[in-house]
Amino acid sequence: MNHPGHLIEVLLFIILLFLVWISFTNFGMVKRFLIGRPMRTAELSGQHTKLLWFIALPILSADLYSSVSYGPEAGMTELMGLGDGAKWYIIPITVSTVILLAILITSYIMGILAYPSGGGAYAIAKDNFKPRWVSLVASSSLLIDYILTVAVSVSAALEAISSAYPIVAPYETELAIGCVFLLLVMNLRGVAESAKIFAWPTIGFMVCMVIIIFTGLFECTRHGFVQSTTPPFGTVPKGISTLLVLKAFSSACSALTGIETISNAVPIFREPKQRNAIKTYIALGSITSFTLLGFAYLLYVKGISPSPQNTMLSQLTGLYFGHSIIYQIIIWFTFIVLILAANSTFTGFSQLAAIVAADGYLPRVLTNRGDRLGYSNGIIALAACASILILAFHAHTNALIPLYAIGVFLSFTVAQIGLVRRWLRVKGSRWKIKLAINSFGAFITAIVAVIFAVTKFMGGAWIVLVVLPILVFFSLTIRKHYNFIAQELHIDISKEFPEIREVTTIVLVSGVHRVVNSTISFAKSIGDNPIAVYVGFDDESINKMERKWEEWGYPCRLVVLKSKYRSVLEPLNRFIKIVEEKRGHEGHIHLIIPQFIPKRGWHNLLHNQTALQLRLWFLRHKDVVITTVPYHLKK
Amino acid sequence: MNHPGHLIEVLLFIILLFLVWISFTNFGMVKRFLIGRPMRTAELSGQHTKLLWFIALPILSADLYSSVSYGPEAGMTELMGLGDGAKWYIIPITVSTVILLAILITSYIMGILAYPSGGGAYAIAKDNFKPRWVSLVASSSLLIDYILTVAVSVSAALEAISSAYPIVAPYETELAIGCVFLLLVMNLRGVAESAKIFAWPTIGFMVCMVIIIFTGLFECTRHGFVQSTTPPFGTVPKGISTLLVLKAFSSACSALTGIETISNAVPIFREPKQRNAIKTYIALGSITSFTLLGFAYLLYVKGISPSPQNTMLSQLTGLYFGHSIIYQIIIWFTFIVLILAANSTFTGFSQLAAIVAADGYLPRVLTNRGDRLGYSNGIIALAACASILILAFHAHTNALIPLYAIGVFLSFTVAQIGLVRRWLRVKGSRWKIKLAINSFGAFITAIVAVIFAVTKFMGGAWIVLVVLPILVFFSLTIRKHYNFIAQELHIDISKEFPEIREVTTIVLVSGVHRVVNSTISFAKSIGDNPIAVYVGFDDESINKMERKWEEWGYPCRLVVLKSKYRSVLEPLNRFIKIVEEKRGHEGHIHLIIPQFIPKRGWHNLLHNQTALQLRLWFLRHKDVVITTVPYHLKK
Repeated sequence: MNHPGHLIEVLLFIILLFLVWISFTNFGMVKRFLIGRPMRTAELSGQHTKLLWFIALPILSADLYSSVSYGPEAGMTELMGLGDGAKWYIIPITVSTVILLAILITSYIMGILAYPSGGGAYAIAKDNFKPRWVSLVASSSLLIDYILTVAVSVSAALEAISSAYPIVAPYETELAIGCVFLLLVMNLRGVAESAKIFAWPTIGFMVCMVIIIFTGLFECTRHGFVQSTTPPFGTVPKGISTLLVLKAFSSACSALTGIETISNAVPIFREPKQRNAIKTYIALGSITSFTLLGFAYLLYVKGISPSPQNTMLSQLTGLYFGHSIIYQIIIWFTFIVLILAANSTFTGFSQLAAIVAADGYLPRVLTNRGDRLGYSNGIIALAACASILILAFHAHTNALIPLYAIGVFLSFTVAQIGLVRRWLRVKGSRWKIKLAINSFGAFITAIVAVIFAVTKFMGGAWIVLVVLPILVFFSLTIRKHYNFIAQELHIDISKEFPEIREVTTIVLVSGVHRVVNSTISFAKSIGDNPIAVYVGFDDESINKMERKWEEWGYPCRLVVLKSKYRSVLEPLNRFIKIVEEKRGHEGHIHLIIPQFIPKRGWHNLLHNQTALQLRLWFLRHKDVVITTVPYHLKK
Repeated sequence: MNHPGHLIEVLLFIILLFLVWISFTNFGMVKRFLIGRPMRTAELSGQHTKLLWFIALPILSADLYSSVSYGPEAGMTELMGLGDGAKWYIIPITVSTVILLAILITSYIMGILAYPSGGGAYAIAKDNFKPRWVSLVASSSLLIDYILTVAVSVSAALEAISSAYPIVAPYETELAIGCVFLLLVMNLRGVAESAKIFAWPTIGFMVCMVIIIFTGLFECTRHGFVQSTTPPFGTVPKGISTLLVLKAFSSACSALTGIETISNAVPIFREPKQRNAIKTYIALGSITSFTLLGFAYLLYVKGISPSPQNTMLSQLTGLYFGHSIIYQIIIWFTFIVLILAANSTFTGFSQLAAIVAADGYLPRVLTNRGDRLGYSNGIIALAACASILILAFHAHTNALIPLYAIGVFLSFTVAQIGLVRRWLRVKGSRWKIKLAINSFGAFITAIVAVIFAVTKFMGGAWIVLVVLPILVFFSLTIRKHYNFIAQELHIDISKEFPEIREVTTIVLVSGVHRVVNSTISFAKSIGDNPIAVYVGFDDESINKMERKWEEWGYPCRLVVLKSKYRSVLEPLNRFIKIVEEKRGHEGHIHLIIPQFIPKRGWHNLLHNQTALQLRLWFLRHKDVVITTVPYHLKK
């Protein structure tokens, strides 16, 4: 039996191992190659040039607009269980989605009016709610949804490609992980989200969608607006239930994720910022609504069914253009725009994580700027989480959809209620209208969130509903830890001052050789009377050591310990306990351990890492100062 | 769409994460629970009670005898490409295999006569060849084959189970990894290979095989020794070639692995050891031959074809006994014996690795005895390698077979040539007969090794033929490294003696707080004039630090450094370079870094691991002594 597939896999595995090896041994070089030279903090300012609104539109819309490629399909997939008779529901569902979109955009415009410097859900919640868990619900659910955006967008991108080229279908998961890795590297290099070059693919994709819709409508003028393929409208198929329709509706709502991007990005608009941002919202809302409605109508007219091998967008395009060059262009634009949607999420995630971390609710490392000034740790965390999701769900968009969007709608709701509280507090011009809009918005988004949670619960939403409170709880715990530390570390400088105390120096020796020589030399240089400790596993080696030490001229006091369990740690720990008891907890105990440093990293595998193990254990369990004296091998 | 499969996978994943978490936070406890209390070195002696030969027989035969369950199947699988007409070849192929078995056993008996204290291929080669790479070829190919034995046996065990219970078939890989993990834990606990309890399943399996064969033969007396299902004998199907027959032969030879176990274990026999070991060899050879021949004949008579869902042993058993309780018993005995075969390999691998490592050709850690006196590191390495193989080949026995057995035959050949050289050198009683036997054995095993390499090359043998020289090369490099170190570390105790040198103490501080207080306190206790170094990312923080230091009363000299690239490492390194240049390479440079030690391990994630990063970098790149002063947080 031949297994050519296995051969290729084994070869790829070997290449992968080799690359991992290279990366470990020449980490700095590989990093420099992938990421580029480090940048100074001073280069941070002046990154953003202010954008005209019609240029900002495509740049900021990749996330929302790209969702049209999977939203209607997700809705239709839910309906398919009931046969062709249920297909017509896609029309009212899409209309409801578009109405919801209009409500959301109106509410978001209120947000822009309230927070002209860019107010994400977290900032709005923080400003308007006293209990911090409310804003943490907003931030955590957004963070979760950003992770899902990457997983869903990249999976959908790969599904687009494998619809056109079925040969890549078996490798979807691997290729998706590869795309996430590329996005990771690009973002660590620091691709500015607002780079104008990102405008073109989105414009291209918009044009593609418009062409498809007009081609379809034109075709309808010739073959009729109800065709032989069109399923009957208005029939109520057996087994349909409100719950099922709502389930399809919530799946279709995944097309609405990414709506928050513009309101976060108000500062990058040219003056008047708010006006321009609002203009962009209206334009984006219009084109998205048009696309959703047109696309859903054509899917319905042509009676297209979802298929795991071929996305509905690809089926529809194939129907009008065959597998021509136009088809190829449309598929590639879909792919690129979905990848761009994932890309813009990287900035969103890492910035939000940094803001929350700066408030002390997430690990501080998330606020560190990397070599290229991006929040590298957040970027890496996002890539890692998204990869795990892609792996767990085998890059199936429709399997990920049930987890998706619930976070967005939760954070929408929190933000809207926050705005309601703000209008009640601040008032201002025409506040009653604004209040009404946001109250209605809050009401609707809350209902959608509940519909989501209920209809998608078993399908996967429960995962989000379990992870979310855990995340909020951890955030609060983290803040408590930081508060505690600040308290614990605080000193009264008028009362506390470094004192000189007695130091007992213990040097671990393993024989009489050059490493021991240099270690004892250091120990004697920093204080008198170090104690050398030798741990032997049998009487023979202990006697030999004592003899040799004598011959060497007894450079310092030697204590020999016998280990019954072949461990250095246990007898050494016993000895240190005795020293502690002898002198109370007054002085410092100072343990000096020599360590080999081979020239080549892998040579470390050839030496017992006793030094490392001892260091880790004693640091964790004892109040012992630990010194490592390196001995650099020449080879 | 519901994805119950995904739900279960996600749940299992969460449970796995939880277990990993528990293991990391309570490593000691989990280890104690799984592995048991540590044992004293003194408990090592007297582990072995000497065994009667007929008790040793089943204990030592699991490895060889269990192979009958997959060897004939592997051979038949190769023949299947040519249809039923080629099936009769299984008879001459099995006869050749049995003849080869007889030759090998005779040769191995010569080995026992030459090395009564137990001579593995490595020991024999070491004793009889000057160039060390020869014995390394023997040891490395055996080590590779031990890894394959675990992978193949466990995969075959799972295939037996999933033949009987198809419901577990999709989880074969996961379950196989689970079995390897169980074997790992068992072996870390230190299951003595010679435990008498292991005799019973093998005896049970032998009885099962004998029952099947006699049932089959009895059935033949009623329905004829050539039945309607029997394919025609002696026809030469179109497309058959010598190469193909040889390929099937080499696959069938995988039934011969594990033959070396008895000769390695001579010391555990009761006196007269050699006689008893030889008796055991003859008995084992007889029963294995009988089983192979009988099994192959029945497979042929019944015209059974290999199937990926149902092993041939399971098909044959099903034919005679249906899915009765007898069938279940046979399947479970097959499973247990195959797992026992993998189990005995753990001892073989770790002991061989320890012997080679003691000679300096493998990392020394392999010679360390763990808590339970087994060579834990070798055991862990074997489990890891076998798991990777199982993953890479999706636990398909037939995909692993082409890699298998080539190592065994290579080491057989080396050992036999070694024995030939020994007889020529030592001579002794009847040495000419022994010489003749081993020469013939060497000739035959060499030919089989070549047949293997040629016929299986593309199927996977190339992997072994690539890995083997790499392993040998690495072994030689490792020895060179150890030799070099021994030389480099050696001191002339009459000339070299620890000297007192000047020490420059640098303390890294991050502000004025309790941690800095305790660190400076230690620094001042071991020497006068430490230099505190503060690295700031902007002017503001630097000015603030200088002011605070002043207010505190200037406990020691303070140097402030500004980092343009938000890194502590780079300015600190610059500073240390300046210190080095100032004082030449005479004195010690001593860098003191404080480190937070939180009470809970996961709290480490909340602190920048600057201390750790600095320590790793400086130890590797600079001749700087590094001290960690722990600060234990109360929470």
